[in-house]
Parts: sequence; C-alpha cells; structure tokens
Amino acid sequence: MNLKNRIQQLKELNSDLHKEDFLLTWEKSEDDLKMVLEVADILKELRDQNISPKVFDSGLAVSIFRDNSTRTRFSYASAANLLGLEVQDMDEEKSQIAHGETVRETANMISFLTDMIGIRDDMYLGEGNKYMREVADALDEGFEKDVLPSRPGIVNLQCDMDHPTQSMADLLHLKKEYGSLENLKGKKMVMSWAYSPSYGKPLSVPQGIIALMTRYGMDIELAYPEGYELIPEIVEIAQKNAKQSGGSFKISHDMTEAVKDADIVYAKSWAPFHIMQQRTALLKASDKEGLKSLEKRCLLENEKQKEWEYDNAKMKLTKEGKALYMHCLPADISGVSCKEGEVTADTFEKFRIKTYHEAGFKPYIIAAMMFTNKFKNPAKTLNKILKRGLKRKGV
Amino acid sequence: MNLKNRIQQLKELNSDLHKEDFLLTWEKSEDDLKMVLEVADILKELRDQNISPKVFDSGLAVSIFRDNSTRTRFSYASAANLLGLEVQDMDEEKSQIAHGETVRETANMISFLTDMIGIRDDMYLGEGNKYMREVADALDEGFEKDVLPSRPGIVNLQCDMDHPTQSMADLLHLKKEYGSLENLKGKKMVMSWAYSPSYGKPLSVPQGIIALMTRYGMDIELAYPEGYELIPEIVEIAQKNAKQSGGSFKISHDMTEAVKDADIVYAKSWAPFHIMQQRTALLKASDKEGLKSLEKRCLLENEKQKEWEYDNAKMKLTKEGKALYMHCLPADISGVSCKEGEVTADTFEKFRIKTYHEAGFKPYIIAAMMFTNKFKNPAKTLNKILKRGLKRKGV
Amino acid sequence: MNLKNRIQQLKELNSDLHKEDFLLTWEKSEDDLKMVLEVADILKELRDQNISPKVFDSGLAVSIFRDNSTRTRFSYASAANLLGLEVQDMDEEKSQIAHGETVRETANMISFLTDMIGIRDDMYLGEGNKYMREVADALDEGFEKDVLPSRPGIVNLQCDMDHPTQSMADLLHLKKEYGSLENLKGKKMVMSWAYSPSYGKPLSVPQGIIALMTRYGMDIELAYPEGYELIPEIVEIAQKNAKQSGGSFKISHDMTEAVKDADIVYAKSWAPFHIMQQRTALLKASDKEGLKSLEKRCLLENEKQKEWEYDNAKMKLTKEGKALYMHCLPADISGVSCKEGEVTADTFEKFRIKTYHEAGFKPYIIAAMMFTNKFKNPAKTLNKILKRGLKRKGV
Repeated sequence: MNLKNRIQQLKELNSDLHKEDFLLTWEKSEDDLKMVLEVADILKELRDQNISPKVFDSGLAVSIFRDNSTRTRFSYASAANLLGLEVQDMDEEKSQIAHGETVRETANMISFLTDMIGIRDDMYLGEGNKYMREVADALDEGFEKDVLPSRPGIVNLQCDMDHPTQSMADLLHLKKEYGSLENLKGKKMVMSWAYSPSYGKPLSVPQGIIALMTRYGMDIELAYPEGYELIPEIVEIAQKNAKQSGGSFKISHDMTEAVKDADIVYAKSWAPFHIMQQRTALLKASDKEGLKSLEKRCLLENEKQKEWEYDNAKMKLTKEGKALYMHCLPADISGVSCKEGEVTADTFEKFRIKTYHEAGFKPYIIAAMMFTNKFKNPAKTLNKILKRGLKRKGV
Repeated sequence: MNLKNRIQQLKELNSDLHKEDFLLTWEKSEDDLKMVLEVADILKELRDQNISPKVFDSGLAVSIFRDNSTRTRFSYASAANLLGLEVQDMDEEKSQIAHGETVRETANMISFLTDMIGIRDDMYLGEGNKYMREVADALDEGFEKDVLPSRPGIVNLQCDMDHPTQSMADLLHLKKEYGSLENLKGKKMVMSWAYSPSYGKPLSVPQGIIALMTRYGMDIELAYPEGYELIPEIVEIAQKNAKQSGGSFKISHDMTEAVKDADIVYAKSWAPFHIMQQRTALLKASDKEGLKSLEKRCLLENEKQKEWEYDNAKMKLTKEGKALYMHCLPADISGVSCKEGEVTADTFEKFRIKTYHEAGFKPYIIAAMMFTNKFKNPAKTLNKILKRGLKRKGV
Repeated sequence: MNLKNRIQQLKELNSDLHKEDFLLTWEKSEDDLKMVLEVADILKELRDQNISPKVFDSGLAVSIFRDNSTRTRFSYASAANLLGLEVQDMDEEKSQIAHGETVRETANMISFLTDMIGIRDDMYLGEGNKYMREVADALDEGFEKDVLPSRPGIVNLQCDMDHPTQSMADLLHLKKEYGSLENLKGKKMVMSWAYSPSYGKPLSVPQGIIALMTRYGMDIELAYPEGYELIPEIVEIAQKNAKQSGGSFKISHDMTEAVKDADIVYAKSWAPFHIMQQRTALLKASDKEGLKSLEKRCLLENEKQKEWEYDNAKMKLTKEGKALYMHCLPADISGVSCKEGEVTADTFEKFRIKTYHEAGFKPYIIAAMMFTNKFKNPAKTLNKILKRGLKRKGV
C-alpha cells in the first residue's frame, strides 16, 4: 500500500494520544497502540524514501537518564532529531538537582522551550513511574499557570513497571514478521527468564511484554524459576488482557516445557520482584553492607538456574524447531559476553540480525509517540509532510 | 500593541549592542538595556504565536560552564536553539585545556564556526569576569588576523561580579508585573541577605540586582548582617546609578526594618566579600586544610544569622503586606530543601509560581543578547522574521 | 577564480570517495586527496560568503572519542553542524559498552538514523585503526542485511597509524601558503621530533605527515634522536611515495643538521614505536607497576634530548632563516606550557597565528570528507547549493 493510502487509513482510528503522556501501554487503547505502530512505520517509510518528516523548526527534547543506556539514548536522540527537536540531556551530576531542587521546580525550569521529555528511571521499584508522574503533575501546573507556553509531552524510556518504547518496538517487529497484528492471534509466545551472571536487572521488559502481547490474542507463557516473580499487579493485567483478547496467559517454571511448540521465545534475565523490593529499601537506606550481602545471596541463587539458557536443544522443541527468538539487547551470550548466560552463541547468532531489526524500530516508535503527542490529527500533518516532499538528504 | 508596532518602536532606541559582548549591565546604556528587554519580549511573543525567529541555518553556540548549572544551562541551550545555533559544551574535563593550553589558543580553537560563547565562571573572586575578557581579547585577535571568519559574541552567564542574564530576566519580570519600566519609579525594593546552611554562594546576584535596579528610579535597600559586604566598587556603582536615576540606595543591617513598606523583596544568601577573597586565595594555593577551616568558621558565623529568614511576619510589614517576593532559584526553603533557610515554606509557596515566571524570561533574555550582538538592525531583522511567518511547530 | 569555476574544475578529478571511509591517506588516490582539499576550500568559501552548504535536513553524526580532544571535537561538531547533521557523542562511560556489548552490535545500535561516524582511538598501538575497521565491517553487514537504511561513513579522527584530518588540514595550509600543490615540489620539509616533558604522545601525526607530504615531490627529512622510531611499515610507505612523486625521503638524527635550508619545520614530540608497543602490552595486562616503571625510564631517556627544542638559533639555519613552522597544537612551549619543551616562546610566538590558521582548516577538511562520502557527484551538489543561495546567517 502506498504512503498516501496508509495515511488515509489512520483516520479510521479512534485514538486519544494528543497531549497525553506515554507512560504505560495498559493505559492506552487498542487504537492508540495501532496509531503509534502505524505512524512509526510511516515515519520510517518517509525517511527511507528520503522525505523529511521534520515538524519542528526549533524546540528541545529533554532526556533524563537515571540509568545507563546506549540504544535508548540514541533512539531518543534520533527520533527527536528526525522531527526537528534538539536533545538536551538533563545530567543530574552536572546540574543542581542534587542541591535540594525539588522535582516540581526542575520540571518547569527545563521546560520553557521544551516540547518533549524522555525519562529513564528503572533503578528503584515503586519509584520510576512515580517520578514520571511527579514530573507530569509539575508540567500540568506549569502549563495551567502560564509558566510554560505549551505542555511538554513525556515518553517513558523505561521505568520500574513498563518499558513501552521497547515493547512497542517489539510489537512492530512481530507485526512485520507475521504480516499483521491479526496474524498474531493464536501464536504461542514464551516470555522466559534466562540465566545471567549479573544481578538486579530491571523487571520492566518482561512486564511490558506480558502486559502488551496479551492484547493480541496470543498464547503467552511466562516462564521463570520459582521465586523470580514479577510485580503481581502487572501479572493481573496480563491475565485480564489475555481474557479480553481471546488469547491465554499462563505461568510456568520449566523452560524446556515452556518452549515446546512456541512460535516466539523472548528469553531474558531479570531480578525477582521481592529482591528488587529489598534492594530498593537498602538503596534508600544507603545500606552498603546490606546491598553487598543481598547481591551475594542473589548471585548464589542465580547460580542454581544455569539450565535457563536458550540453546539449540531447546530451540528444536519449538514449533517446527524454528521459533522466532527475540531480545531487547544486549544479551548475555555464553562464551561471548560472559562465561554462561541467557543464550548460547550459536543460537544467538542465528537471530542476531533479527534482533538488530527489532531494535531498529525503537527510534521510530519514539518519534511516533512524540508526533502523536504533539499533533492532534496525525493523518493531516503526515499528508502535509508528504505533499511538502522536503528532502531529508540532498539539495 | 501588536508585534509590528512593537518592532517599529525599537527603531527609536539608540543602542550599541552589535558586536559588543554582554559582560556587565553597567557597561550598557539605558537604550541598550531597553533593547534587550524589548527584543526578548518580542522573541517570546513570536514563539508564543508559533512564528519561528530562526536566524541561523547553522553555527555553534559554545557554552563554558566552570560551575554547575541547570536553569542557565537550559536557558542558554533554548536560546541558541530558538535562533538556529547548536550548543556545543566546552567541557574542560573532556578537553585538553588542563594539559597546558592557554586561554588565548583555546578561545580560537573552539570558534572557527562559532557565533556565540556563553561563559559561567563565578567561583573565584577577581577571576570570572577577567577570564571572559581574556577570551574576548583572544577572539578579537583571532578575528583581526583572519583566524576567525567572524567575531563570536560573548554572553556572561554569571561571573564573580555580575549575573546579567539573571538580573535582566528579573527586570523584565518587574516590567511585566508593574506594566512598564517607568512604573518602577519610587518603588521600594529590598535586596536582602538571607540565611542559608551552605557557604560560599556567589555575590553576583545581589551585585547584579543593586547595580541594575538602581537605574530605574527605585528606592533600593541592600540589607545584610554586618560583615556580609559586597564588592565595594559595585556598591559604588549602585550609589551612583541611584543618584542619576532619581532613586535612592542605602545599606542597612536589620531585615525586619528593611522590609517595612517594601514593594519588592529579593531575599537571597551570599558569602561575605572578604571571605570570598580568602577563599580564592586558599583555592589558588590548593590549601585544603585552610579551606576546611574557613568553611567551618563561616558556617558558625552564618549560624548566628538564622533570623534572616523571610517569613509571613516579615511579609506583613511590607507595603500592604503584599510585596512581590523574588528569587533566582533554587531557594533554600526551610523545611523543604533544608532545615532552616532563606524563606519559610508557606511564604515561598505564595510566590512559587511567580518565581517560575521570573525564571521563564531568562531564555529570551539570552536569545535577545545573542540577537542584538549578531544583527546590527534588530528591528529590520525582526520585521523580516514576522513577514516570513515560518511556523515553529507544524508543516 | 570564482566559486562556479572552482566547482566546475572538480569534474576533472577522477576520485572515488563516495561511500568510502576515510581511514588512511595512503589508501586514497591523488585525485581523492585533491577532491577533499578542494571541496573543503569551497565549503569554507561558501560559508565565508554566507551561503549555507546544508545538505541534511536531519541525521546524526556520531562521535566516538576514546581519548581527550578539544580541537578535533569542535572541528567535528562544526563540520557536522555545517552540513545539517547533529552530533551525538557515544560516551562509553555513559553507555552500556562496558557491559559486554560487542563492537559489532553497538556499531549498528548507534547507526539507525546516522549518516557519519567519527572515531578517535589513538591510545593503543595496533588497536585504533583495527577498531575502526571492525566498526566498518559491522556497518557493512548492517547495511547489507537491511538493518541500516544507509551505510554511515567513517572518518578517522586520529588512530595509532594516521591522523588524516590533521595531515590534510596541514596540507591545505601548505597549499595556501605556497599557492598550489605543484609549488610544493622541491620544498624541503623537516618532520622533527622535539623534546617534551610528557611521555606517550601518539605517533599518528609524524606518521601521517611523512606518508602524506612525500606524495607532493617534497624533500622530506624525518629527524629524531636514535631510538625514537616510527612504525616501520609507514616509514616504508613514505619512502615509496617519495620515489613515486619525484621527491625524497630521509631519516636523520640531528635536529640542527636537519633544519638547515629547510622551507618547513614541523617539530613535535612523540613516543618511540617500541615503547608504545611495550606500553600497549602493559596496558592490556593492566600492569600498573610496569607502566609506572616504563614511564620513569622513558622520561629519563627523554631528559637527555632537551636540545631537541626548536628555537631562533635553529630557525636561522633554515632557508633564508624563515622556514614555515607548523604544529598540530597544543605545542609544549618552553616557559609557557612547560619549563622546557618543543619550542621556545619567541619562536612559537612568531608563528602562533599561522598555527591557528593551520588548525582552522580542520573543520572544513572533515566536512569535505563527510560531503564526498555522502554525495556521489560533489560538483553537482555544490552547484545546487550555490544556486539555492540559502543564507547561513540572516533572514
């Protein structure tokens, strides 16, 4: 289908993304998600055809990274740049944020000429998403009281609960692999824990995956060693979603069993929910000894779960032995990035390029979240972009 | 008044800002300051009307921050971006500046395609403004000798003597609050020291305020505990300005007395001038023990001045009990950002949003300083911008 | 000659830079180098005439600096900005690159919307250039397998072997000084080691200079104290180039002898090749004691070579006593940036502004490398730029 027709079809969606932050996929309607997927894909297509979708002549896209990041940082920068915004990092070390400024004040101080704010805050359970909402409230107040000329939109670049730019990129990847969202119906997807020699990895990816993928009629199996629970409220959301979408959701504790007949395997390490709770408490108390001792215990516990490695033997058990392997990257690859890890080198290598494709959707997903936040009628604006036909590269 | 008429009125100003660095307000004429205020306000209005004032298709705006900053950093980035310049931080840790490069050389090396340089250097008394002038001299030489295609303008983003982007934003705030600069005549403004549990805060804000506000016929009272003197030469400038403008300037040592019948109270902590001198000497000598001992003495001295807190009781003493409270932010708010500080939480809360408005003028003040440095005839260029009618956001 | 004619003349060059990384000058043909020099000069002329050569409406220029840098960082940022790309630093401390990501993966993750990648990696002998080729291979794969919509070009911003943006800027400086490349024929240029109180300076500048300048029929003399050898393979390239170009290349060990009748003296410190080999081995082994002891020995060895300082007495020995002094900056200037160094203060001062001019070509050399990598027919694109006549500054 050509771009014009694809843009035309957006008009059939009843989405409500304008001026709404993108914090959790489960706060968004089916049409909202379809809109983001489709706008992302159209923006990608425009750029691939050397048509610039720049919609800002100036403006800042602030990024607040409270945890390290390469791919999300570059994805955010790419998205902002594509639309014409300049990234300005809010580096808390460089800033006075540590010197007693409140979130409320800082949120306004960085937003006078800002259109979007992207936030990664995934270190503390119960904190990341809360922080984003504090920023959101401050921006609401600033806009209402004429401090800000417009209300910057917020994009969740990973929190303690969800990682929507990741899960939406994953979903767009699946849509491309299977041709349509409809084709995902009845597919078996395993979101599996996997062994990693590290500790304390965020829960946001598996949580984001089960909460989102259950909305498309898939049979989602969440597999992990006993004890490696996710946040219960989000598991409930997945259960509810599965019921509504005509799919299913179950939890199991044997990787080998879980991957049987799977169409898709997403194998990734995370820290148990109750450990993250303890860790957050220790971090808040600055209890270094406690943290060390917790880490030691957890790594010992992890050690017992080395069989949770995705390999060719397990691969063979999947549907026709050729399930799609997914990962948010970087993966802990046995013998490559660690001695023993989430996936064997040969299994990973078979899907390496596919995981790159998967990652490649993220800049466009973020751009689409920005675009739909800022433009009430995305189809109309996209049509203007198409008509304008401005070259991205060249004179 | 509509934009066209406001731009027209700029032509009546006899200002001389083109190719002149903005280092100290007291080096600028009344018309220079009016021009900056008015261009700032017009740029804001243009952006609010979604008209892009971009005047550069490329070019760098270098920033050199020798001290931490959030709001000034973002203000500078926003201003540069609004006009079409890209911020490039001159990070001295990342650079080779510590490896024996002279200021003279570095100033040229970072300026080949640079239009503006913003500098914050407020740590050492007698050094910050001097450093800016060293940079300026180097740029002059580079331009004269064809090293640089144009002479980058310098904006003082806070030095040991003045903080002109702050004081000019404050002045624009006052102009808006009272309707005009003329209406400031006869108003009583108290620039008051206030207690803070920290030590070594720069003198540039109070100095900038008394030197600037005395030019508008106001009755300025500088209040501080004995011993907390500012740089004498700048106090003299304030005295001279007050005389010339038909206002008054006096120094007092009792906050409660000072705020009586005040229209405006700017209550902010700073370190005593003679302490900053000692501190600079110790810093130059890398005398860590000396610095620690100085800090200890100063904090003990500060402790005695806790009654210098702006609160509702003092507020009541002001003109009709409703003086305008001002602060450059972040404030040390008792019970919020510190145990005891510059202002009580309830008093601050009454003016919190107003202090945000005050801060919101800074990006436009900086943009106006850039604009007037780079365009000989601001009215002409602004008219072209208006005529062009380029959208800031949208296609 | 006017711009139109200069652009016209580019068509006579048989260069092959499109989609080719710029890693080593000796991999490039004479016409390739002429093209870069000429495009650089045309881009400079365009900007000087206030004509914007912007050719990208969006897109990233990633920079990877594995060593400190001021001038190259700013040159790269300026070049990218001039063409319309936004610099995004790949800061390895901030990123997850230390957490087991492979170069192959990261290269793709940062490149989804990236047009150019600039890399400085000069710390380890045998590593820097190799790393760039690893990145290049990964990008090739990513582009072939549809991970990347286009293949980002790579510019070597200094490696263990070459520093092509420096040597090409130096060559453009010489071309300007002498009127043409042809006029360089028969000129005597001394690339001389010089004393420095520091240790471990990269070899890439002298290597880059001898490998490049021998291509223009000059008589190149490489002078250094015995033991301070460069990489033998690159010395061989210089010898071969000299033979082909009708010039000469020789090595000597007495600075006073070498500078006799020289037209040009490039006097700069570097670490001996075999020391750099040992240093690399120790660094890889994280042998801190070994590194300390090596440094101590080397500094003692250096101490014996203090007569390798370029001064007025040596200056007098050059052709008519007025050889052109060159340096990549910053120089170790005796009595200025160090007690005893590469050059005396008075000799340096005579050429200080000329070294600034020399440095000023670097942003345009980098821009030309980007431009020729991205546009198959530079003359055609430059003509369009000229015709478009977009103002760089102004409305």
